[in-house]
Amino acid sequence: MPRKLVRKRGKPAGSAPGTLIHVGEKRTESVRLHYIDYDAHQLEEQDVAADEAAACCALKDRPSVSWINVDGIHQPATIQTIGDCFSLHPLVQEDILNTDHRPKFEAFDDYAFIVLKMPFYDQERREVRTEQVSLILGNRFVLSFQEKEGDVFDKIRDRLRNNKGRIRKLGADYLAYALIDAVVDHYFSILEQIGDQIEDLEDELILEPDQETLHAIHNFKREMILLRKSVWPLRELISGLQRDESDLISDTTKIYLRDVYDHTIQVIDTVETFRDIIAGMLDLYLSSLSNRMNEVMKVLTIMATIFIPLTFLAGVYGMNFHYMPELTWRWSYPAFWLIMIAIGLGLFVAFKRRKWL
Amino acid sequence: MPRKLVRKRGKPAGSAPGTLIHVGEKRTESVRLHYIDYDAHQLEEQDVAADEAAACCALKDRPSVSWINVDGIHQPATIQTIGDCFSLHPLVQEDILNTDHRPKFEAFDDYAFIVLKMPFYDQERREVRTEQVSLILGNRFVLSFQEKEGDVFDKIRDRLRNNKGRIRKLGADYLAYALIDAVVDHYFSILEQIGDQIEDLEDELILEPDQETLHAIHNFKREMILLRKSVWPLRELISGLQRDESDLISDTTKIYLRDVYDHTIQVIDTVETFRDIIAGMLDLYLSSLSNRMNEVMKVLTIMATIFIPLTFLAGVYGMNFHYMPELTWRWSYPAFWLIMIAIGLGLFVAFKRRKWL
Amino acid sequence: MPRKLVRKRGKPAGSAPGTLIHVGEKRTESVRLHYIDYDAHQLEEQDVAADEAAACCALKDRPSVSWINVDGIHQPATIQTIGDCFSLHPLVQEDILNTDHRPKFEAFDDYAFIVLKMPFYDQERREVRTEQVSLILGNRFVLSFQEKEGDVFDKIRDRLRNNKGRIRKLGADYLAYALIDAVVDHYFSILEQIGDQIEDLEDELILEPDQETLHAIHNFKREMILLRKSVWPLRELISGLQRDESDLISDTTKIYLRDVYDHTIQVIDTVETFRDIIAGMLDLYLSSLSNRMNEVMKVLTIMATIFIPLTFLAGVYGMNFHYMPELTWRWSYPAFWLIMIAIGLGLFVAFKRRKWL
Amino acid sequence: MPRKLVRKRGKPAGSAPGTLIHVGEKRTESVRLHYIDYDAHQLEEQDVAADEAAACCALKDRPSVSWINVDGIHQPATIQTIGDCFSLHPLVQEDILNTDHRPKFEAFDDYAFIVLKMPFYDQERREVRTEQVSLILGNRFVLSFQEKEGDVFDKIRDRLRNNKGRIRKLGADYLAYALIDAVVDHYFSILEQIGDQIEDLEDELILEPDQETLHAIHNFKREMILLRKSVWPLRELISGLQRDESDLISDTTKIYLRDVYDHTIQVIDTVETFRDIIAGMLDLYLSSLSNRMNEVMKVLTIMATIFIPLTFLAGVYGMNFHYMPELTWRWSYPAFWLIMIAIGLGLFVAFKRRKWL
Amino acid sequence: MPRKLVRKRGKPAGSAPGTLIHVGEKRTESVRLHYIDYDAHQLEEQDVAADEAAACCALKDRPSVSWINVDGIHQPATIQTIGDCFSLHPLVQEDILNTDHRPKFEAFDDYAFIVLKMPFYDQERREVRTEQVSLILGNRFVLSFQEKEGDVFDKIRDRLRNNKGRIRKLGADYLAYALIDAVVDHYFSILEQIGDQIEDLEDELILEPDQETLHAIHNFKREMILLRKSVWPLRELISGLQRDESDLISDTTKIYLRDVYDHTIQVIDTVETFRDIIAGMLDLYLSSLSNRMNEVMKVLTIMATIFIPLTFLAGVYGMNFHYMPELTWRWSYPAFWLIMIAIGLGLFVAFKRRKWL
Repeated sequence: MPRKLVRKRGKPAGSAPGTLIHVGEKRTESVRLHYIDYDAHQLEEQDVAADEAAACCALKDRPSVSWINVDGIHQPATIQTIGDCFSLHPLVQEDILNTDHRPKFEAFDDYAFIVLKMPFYDQERREVRTEQVSLILGNRFVLSFQEKEGDVFDKIRDRLRNNKGRIRKLGADYLAYALIDAVVDHYFSILEQIGDQIEDLEDELILEPDQETLHAIHNFKREMILLRKSVWPLRELISGLQRDESDLISDTTKIYLRDVYDHTIQVIDTVETFRDIIAGMLDLYLSSLSNRMNEVMKVLTIMATIFIPLTFLAGVYGMNFHYMPELTWRWSYPAFWLIMIAIGLGLFVAFKRRKWL
Repeated sequence: MPRKLVRKRGKPAGSAPGTLIHVGEKRTESVRLHYIDYDAHQLEEQDVAADEAAACCALKDRPSVSWINVDGIHQPATIQTIGDCFSLHPLVQEDILNTDHRPKFEAFDDYAFIVLKMPFYDQERREVRTEQVSLILGNRFVLSFQEKEGDVFDKIRDRLRNNKGRIRKLGADYLAYALIDAVVDHYFSILEQIGDQIEDLEDELILEPDQETLHAIHNFKREMILLRKSVWPLRELISGLQRDESDLISDTTKIYLRDVYDHTIQVIDTVETFRDIIAGMLDLYLSSLSNRMNEVMKVLTIMATIFIPLTFLAGVYGMNFHYMPELTWRWSYPAFWLIMIAIGLGLFVAFKRRKWL
Repeated sequence: MPRKLVRKRGKPAGSAPGTLIHVGEKRTESVRLHYIDYDAHQLEEQDVAADEAAACCALKDRPSVSWINVDGIHQPATIQTIGDCFSLHPLVQEDILNTDHRPKFEAFDDYAFIVLKMPFYDQERREVRTEQVSLILGNRFVLSFQEKEGDVFDKIRDRLRNNKGRIRKLGADYLAYALIDAVVDHYFSILEQIGDQIEDLEDELILEPDQETLHAIHNFKREMILLRKSVWPLRELISGLQRDESDLISDTTKIYLRDVYDHTIQVIDTVETFRDIIAGMLDLYLSSLSNRMNEVMKVLTIMATIFIPLTFLAGVYGMNFHYMPELTWRWSYPAFWLIMIAIGLGLFVAFKRRKWL
Repeated sequence: MPRKLVRKRGKPAGSAPGTLIHVGEKRTESVRLHYIDYDAHQLEEQDVAADEAAACCALKDRPSVSWINVDGIHQPATIQTIGDCFSLHPLVQEDILNTDHRPKFEAFDDYAFIVLKMPFYDQERREVRTEQVSLILGNRFVLSFQEKEGDVFDKIRDRLRNNKGRIRKLGADYLAYALIDAVVDHYFSILEQIGDQIEDLEDELILEPDQETLHAIHNFKREMILLRKSVWPLRELISGLQRDESDLISDTTKIYLRDVYDHTIQVIDTVETFRDIIAGMLDLYLSSLSNRMNEVMKVLTIMATIFIPLTFLAGVYGMNFHYMPELTWRWSYPAFWLIMIAIGLGLFVAFKRRKWL
Repeated sequence: MPRKLVRKRGKPAGSAPGTLIHVGEKRTESVRLHYIDYDAHQLEEQDVAADEAAACCALKDRPSVSWINVDGIHQPATIQTIGDCFSLHPLVQEDILNTDHRPKFEAFDDYAFIVLKMPFYDQERREVRTEQVSLILGNRFVLSFQEKEGDVFDKIRDRLRNNKGRIRKLGADYLAYALIDAVVDHYFSILEQIGDQIEDLEDELILEPDQETLHAIHNFKREMILLRKSVWPLRELISGLQRDESDLISDTTKIYLRDVYDHTIQVIDTVETFRDIIAGMLDLYLSSLSNRMNEVMKVLTIMATIFIPLTFLAGVYGMNFHYMPELTWRWSYPAFWLIMIAIGLGLFVAFKRRKWL
């Protein structure tokens, strides 16, 4: 079953903006909150139950950096609790619940709102899909909201726990950068898989293309159309972050953002290259079809052209006219065979000359 | 009957600008006026007969916000009465009557003129069409002109009556935003319907494509071309509103406009995605045709190629030459069948090898 | 005969700029001059012979607005007389005579030079062509040069004579606007005609497409390519007029120019939409061809496949072998027919299953 | 033999910039220098031998305007002599010798360097090619370098000699303008020729397209791709000249540059139009092919479908079964013919109904 | 085996930025360092073992210009040693090791980081590939990192050793320019080879296209898609260098950069032209296929159409009806032949008229 082209919007047209309604599929059973609070010297980490979300509010006033991660966004109440603690605008709260957004960056007075699309390979539907990841970057906190648990951020948790690299020394902006970088890097691993599949398909296309190959090309094309929609806005998003003039993002982090910007350009480049290659494959497929049709037609034409006159001649000597002198001659039957073979060979040579054989 | 590509313009080329002539179809019998006058504390609501339009003029001087909605724009006199009360430029009055415009935003000294296209599904013609919605945003009033009664604005009327959300607390600019938002949201429900139809068509395309499928693809393509014309200018319109430097639009409302701008981008994205997908479907359709032609040709070629030489041989032994020694041999008839079967099997194996069977 | 793609340029490459040579077809026999001199209170109107063009010079110094219209531009002397009176730059005089220009706007110190393309339907060649209209907008005068007499400006003459609307009250810039508006409006009536023809062609395409349909599509495509060349620069031209910072164009007129700018965008939109629709029609035509080819092939294949084995069998029993036991059996002939019908029906059912019938 | 897509570069990768090596074909045997030195009152003109190039150096200090034209650029020594006299940057000297450049404009402190491509029709290869024309515009001198003698500049020489127009009264910048204008005008005459050929081809395409037509379309397409490469940069070049802020180009000349800019846009427009038309011709050609294939298939199918059942029936009554009662009936032979004719007519009517005939 | 579309990234998604891991193929066995230290008067040159990289650090403080070239980048330790000596940012060190980057230019406080792609023809895989060249331009040093030894820079080494041209007189920025210029020039020699191959393919396409030709076209297309990815960013890179406002690049060198910018534009132009030409070749190939199919079909149709009615007639007179008067007539057999020949000739003439023969 292909993915829906436009998702049903729970919110009816004309309803008040800022109404908190979850829009999208429910992708995990339980909502899970987890926070890590750290500075260069210490780290505190804890799981929080969905109905005790208010417990996270205290983190806001600590001088250390807090990262609150929410897996599962289908409970508006939880989002609202968190959102109100950190004074998020009602429209932002609405946007976090609505998984329909394209990647974007919005600066508010004392926080930045970032929407990303995380690609993942849906084993069941056998296609690449995306889930929405929303980030709130505040002065000393980062909130992240995912549709379901994922393992992409685990590497960052490990770096925090093990105090690897500079991550514990730098502020919330560096953490936000690390999360964005992890998402963009994840695109590479997905594109690598797709690249492998495309190369397999190219081999198949040259060896023995069939109707299946055509559908596979069509599916890749469709996948690229939809993947493209989620990567192009990334570029704008990150250059928006780089140009941001608030104090949220330090100059040190901006150098790292330049790096992730480069990666984004590469992701876009790769998607565009895949599109071009897939378009080329379709051309190749159609040419192969025409080529094979040509082959089939040639075989038919050669067979028909050689035997049609022969059959006619055989028919002639099967006629029952009383006065057919050839019929009584002694050598007409062998002569008939000789003529047949001569005609056949003559046509064969003519085909050879035209390079049909 | 497909929708007209270019609508007849009632106004003859070269006539004076500012002449009030209705251009377009008459889509409702009677012209209906309705106003809602409200502030945070009270709300007054009334239907007004078309020929008493002047009664609305008094609303202009009230300190509360007034929303005058006109359904049916084919009576120039009504439009002129309203237009003159609220001192609209003659060109604006002409534009309200002319349903031929593309979406646009024009700032005047003390009001803004906004033209939108509202999509609707025409049951009779079985296609998506648009009607024109014109808005005038003044300091404490909003005028809306629709070609026919619709239910998209009912939600907003309910929010006003029930004093839901912030709508009663904020000014005329927020009301105008709410109306635009309702129109843009309506595009989503239309696109959702089209998306479902496209997916049905895709299934049909893979299972059993026929001439009908081709016409359906062509119609979608045409629909997208025309829908596209009405959504692209929306983007410019809303970013025009956001950049507007008059006092008409408050900063609070501008944050909401940013939200509706995002939705517009999503609508455009979706329309473009549909275009790409439809283009892909046409390719798929053509490839399927070629594939099926190949199948047909193969069947013909296999049958012909197997039987043509056999028929020739049968013809040979039907000849009436007097001296054909084979005819008299005891086992030639069974031998003939054996040879026939051998030739047939040989060709069959050859076709198998070429993967034609 | 299709219109020439590139018109012969009378002027040889390398000749001095400013040389007055008429470039283009001669489209009218006699050159005709006509002037209307008016202000809010009076109007004077007169035809002037081509060789008395100098008589118009006196109009330059009157305080009222003068509009001098020249029909037929193939007499350089006339253009030069007028041009020198109103101190036009030699390059401008050359450009008026050369009908090869694309629409453009050029500001000079005390006048503006505007080149437009007026579309008209050439009955003889059965295609849309354009003639060049050049306007000179001075402080209190407008000069218009047409290749041949037309009736598009008659409406404006009537408005002037009858003192309808604001035209007599406003200056030369409003008159120039009115002329441009008349030309742009004229595009709509031409596009309306083309739109009707395209819709007729679409019906024909679905009912019974043939080689003629293909040529009609090709001609529309060609027409659009050439029409497009004349409408795109209009946009730039009018926005150039709007941005003009000289005193020639008043702010009042600029509001009207905004209106004509909108119309131009609509014209461009329509031309682009037609291009898209025509491209879609070509695809549809090609698909129909393939579809019909498929139909033809199926009929051939079904007939051949059913009868080829039957004919073979009939041939077998027409053989003259002496020992063919079946020939002597009592029921072999009826049995032969039964087998024939069984084979025929079997193949018929097989085709039914493959949805070939 | 088609023109080389990429020309061999004499200069090996990595060699020092500023090394004077001629890159390109040698298009004339002898290098010829010619100078014209003039002001409003007098004109001096002389041919100079290649090895006395230094004689031109004296011209630099004269108060009059000097135009030195060099035909043939394959002798680096001559270019260097001239270049050093007029203090040209080594890179400029290298660029003059290298015919591989795209049109460009480069401003230096006291001169401007302009590279143009002059189109010409190569009789031998039967295709349009370009030669490089380099101009150096100094304060009171113009240097022009051509690959071979041409007659495009002769008109300008005549204008200088005859003191026609303003050319002797204005400075070196006007001369440079006149040279550029001559080159751009030359594009028109080339495009006119191509336009005529394209129209001939269009007629051929409709009357009797064959493999030759296809190759002609392909060659035009290729020619347009390469011509396009040489005209697009012209636009930028001339607008660069217009925006130039040095004292080299006077305001009077800039008005003339605006004119040549318009011509350039027209050239580009025409090339793009040709591309569109050629693309349309390819579509038309392919559709014609499919149409004709359809015709061929229909003839085959009609013939086969009518005769296949008849031949089968004839075969049936040629069988030698002993008990075939029809064979002995008196009227079976005429009846056979009647049935044959009835079947034939029936199929004929069926084909008529399907519009195959 | 085609080149991988996306290269495996050694670095797992989410790992810390600045971690030094080599990403890419290992293209040379041993890592080699070589430095040249020079000024206008002296030059010192030496090979350094990979594990003594620290020896290069001393060069940093010399007043002369130092060029350190590293061939082979798969040993992170070597890169880190060098990188730390010259205080390169950890992200830069990471980027040098990762061969996955697109060309880019990044300015840091006291050095500039430049990534280039050097094309080379891979003999084994028979296709054009690229290797990454990273340059660090400091105040008095240039570091260059190549994936494997190449000979493109040898010319520059010779110019340095022989003190040819200005290279020893100008600073590190001129050396960096010379290296970039060598890379860009190398694109020309690669494109020249491809151009030759494309022209060979074009000839083949016209003479005798087959399935191989199609695959060759497809491969060129793919090669162009990938080559394009590496040349487009070059343009931005070099214009970034030109606009750079630090003191690293002198005005003298910027004039040379303008030259290399022109070359880059030409490279891009050529790649785009190749793309257009290859697209045209595919069209030509497909048209040839259709043309040949047409030929085949015509032969079949002519043969079948001529012989089918003849065979039918022969069948008729092979029937065994007792009462067939023609059978006994004296001249019916010769008459039969005459009728056969007449029918055959009639059909032949009909085909001639339709231009099928």
